[in-house]
Amino acid sequence: MTTASTTATATTTATTTATATTTATTPAPTHARGTDRVLTGDRPTGPLHLGHYFGTLHNRVRLQNEGVDLFLVIPDYQVLTDRDVAERLSDHVEGLVLDYLGAGVDPSRATVFTHSAVPALNQLLLPFLSLVSVAELGRNPTVKDEIAHSRQSAVSGLMYTYPAHQAADILFCKANLVPVGKDQEPHLELTRTIARRFNERYGPVFPEPRTLLSEAPLLLGTDGTKMSKSRNNSLALKASSDETARLIRGAKTDATRLIAYDPEHRPEVSNLVLLTALCEGRDPHEVAADIGDGGASALKAAATEAVNTYFAPLRARRAEYAQDMGYVRELLRAGNAKANEVAEATLAEVREAMGMFR
Amino acid sequence: MTTASTTATATTTATTTATATTTATTPAPTHARGTDRVLTGDRPTGPLHLGHYFGTLHNRVRLQNEGVDLFLVIPDYQVLTDRDVAERLSDHVEGLVLDYLGAGVDPSRATVFTHSAVPALNQLLLPFLSLVSVAELGRNPTVKDEIAHSRQSAVSGLMYTYPAHQAADILFCKANLVPVGKDQEPHLELTRTIARRFNERYGPVFPEPRTLLSEAPLLLGTDGTKMSKSRNNSLALKASSDETARLIRGAKTDATRLIAYDPEHRPEVSNLVLLTALCEGRDPHEVAADIGDGGASALKAAATEAVNTYFAPLRARRAEYAQDMGYVRELLRAGNAKANEVAEATLAEVREAMGMFR
Repeated sequence: MTTASTTATATTTATTTATATTTATTPAPTHARGTDRVLTGDRPTGPLHLGHYFGTLHNRVRLQNEGVDLFLVIPDYQVLTDRDVAERLSDHVEGLVLDYLGAGVDPSRATVFTHSAVPALNQLLLPFLSLVSVAELGRNPTVKDEIAHSRQSAVSGLMYTYPAHQAADILFCKANLVPVGKDQEPHLELTRTIARRFNERYGPVFPEPRTLLSEAPLLLGTDGTKMSKSRNNSLALKASSDETARLIRGAKTDATRLIAYDPEHRPEVSNLVLLTALCEGRDPHEVAADIGDGGASALKAAATEAVNTYFAPLRARRAEYAQDMGYVRELLRAGNAKANEVAEATLAEVREAMGMFR
Repeated sequence: MTTASTTATATTTATTTATATTTATTPAPTHARGTDRVLTGDRPTGPLHLGHYFGTLHNRVRLQNEGVDLFLVIPDYQVLTDRDVAERLSDHVEGLVLDYLGAGVDPSRATVFTHSAVPALNQLLLPFLSLVSVAELGRNPTVKDEIAHSRQSAVSGLMYTYPAHQAADILFCKANLVPVGKDQEPHLELTRTIARRFNERYGPVFPEPRTLLSEAPLLLGTDGTKMSKSRNNSLALKASSDETARLIRGAKTDATRLIAYDPEHRPEVSNLVLLTALCEGRDPHEVAADIGDGGASALKAAATEAVNTYFAPLRARRAEYAQDMGYVRELLRAGNAKANEVAEATLAEVREAMGMFR
């Protein structure tokens, strides 16, 4: 189970940080124009890790810097889709904001908010639930998969309805682009269905958001399985250099001295090669060739060096923000205020279109 | 299907205005104390009729006059639980408010509001959905019955989750008493379950509301079946004297001249006897004895007279308010503002208890 999933509004529990391979084909547009509004976010269940970073966070910052209007939702209610109680919720929320700021999210341009602080957004769940059938909710393959991986003994109403709530997260700000992994496409399809049905029934209010499919590589954890905090195999963004060295030193490899990039047959070794290549902006085959027959220890030294070098400025920026948590909380309050303004305007349109008493 | 159901937050479609017989036994308390807060309401699907009046509305006004804090929700989203579009919604909402005012609801004491205008109330649906399982939602017998009577081809997510939304309608104002018919008891039980689970998980925030079981008599429509606007068999509260005479004249009776109160064997005749008795505050057997062998025409004359006499002041008051719809809308806006204030306070407690970022 991932600690904080990385796609769309990110309630996924069984999905990892990225979707495809480095050579994934790219349907749909992969670039957002300057006038686009992008909605994405992460569940506040723990620190973001390098899988999240290379999977989506890096791409979000790129989009922001290209001029899209970036909305980052921290879907705090959705923590409860697969567990009874959300532990240390405020800590995780503040940690996420620090991870964002460290990674280069610019609060003067992006809007970071927690959805539980935006009642008008949450209210959209009600008209949206009127537009989808129970059967449609029940046959969502991602929800089925998440139910299979849930920590709860029974499927909660919140788990069952969360794709409609996710539609509210996306549509309240009329986002027209949503970066997702392939496993999240059924959710986006439901969001588009809801937008289309609403518009048909009540008049044009919502865009039908397009998918911005991630080309991101799939990073594994240090044990060669999916990177996930709950598996104790992840490298946190905020890890120190020493921690990074220790974690990579403990990473699983194999006994073949000659290092190669061969994800299918040598997943653990290839993962460290890929991590190094991502940090250095190089081709993984080239990285592997450089290490040659240096074996696992040379590979680990290279990976540690690459990670610590690449993330040094990010970590420094994060640490600097962490010195002033009052400021961080102010940023989040400002993001929540902005989200409320946007949500109230959208809800007013929705109530008007539906003929509600005003 | 009823046009506006009358119990609890009243999304019922297959239930009528009342529950029991005139001689129903009374479990649970039937009187509210001065400090009690009562939540009840009606779906805005059409004018209230005499079944609603004697079923619940009369009792609500009595409770109000005894000093309870009466909250009347007009659950406008819940119109969409069994139909695709809510037609003439604002008209129906304003008509409901007029019906309430006519019946004696005192806006200086009671709070009348539409739930779609209270985002913080609606937000409670999210934590509440985390406290109930899909299985619990699915096995609600009233929902099953309503699904069977729905106008829609597929069961919407809104229908499926509405008992949890109804819990939000009740708990946002911490109502501790809810007047319901027997068929609504499963809903109240779910509301109590949600309140109890929330309190156990996060600390004491909500009362577990008690049921105020209605002793109200079951009035039938003019065709001897359940009174319902969609069956064209109902006597609207707002009907004129002439309309009332015409509708009662067309009511189904039987060929036996001797009038008697025998609901089991002579439901149509007994219904007109009961209606007369309710309006005159008399025992139905006494009313029947008075008419004796006057037959259906004497019975209908007596019923028409009784209804028009009893409802004359109510109708006059309603007509007076209808002269100034601006004032009526102001009342509703004030009710919505009050409900928002209450809901925001409750939501703040809920977010605090759940450890949400504030």
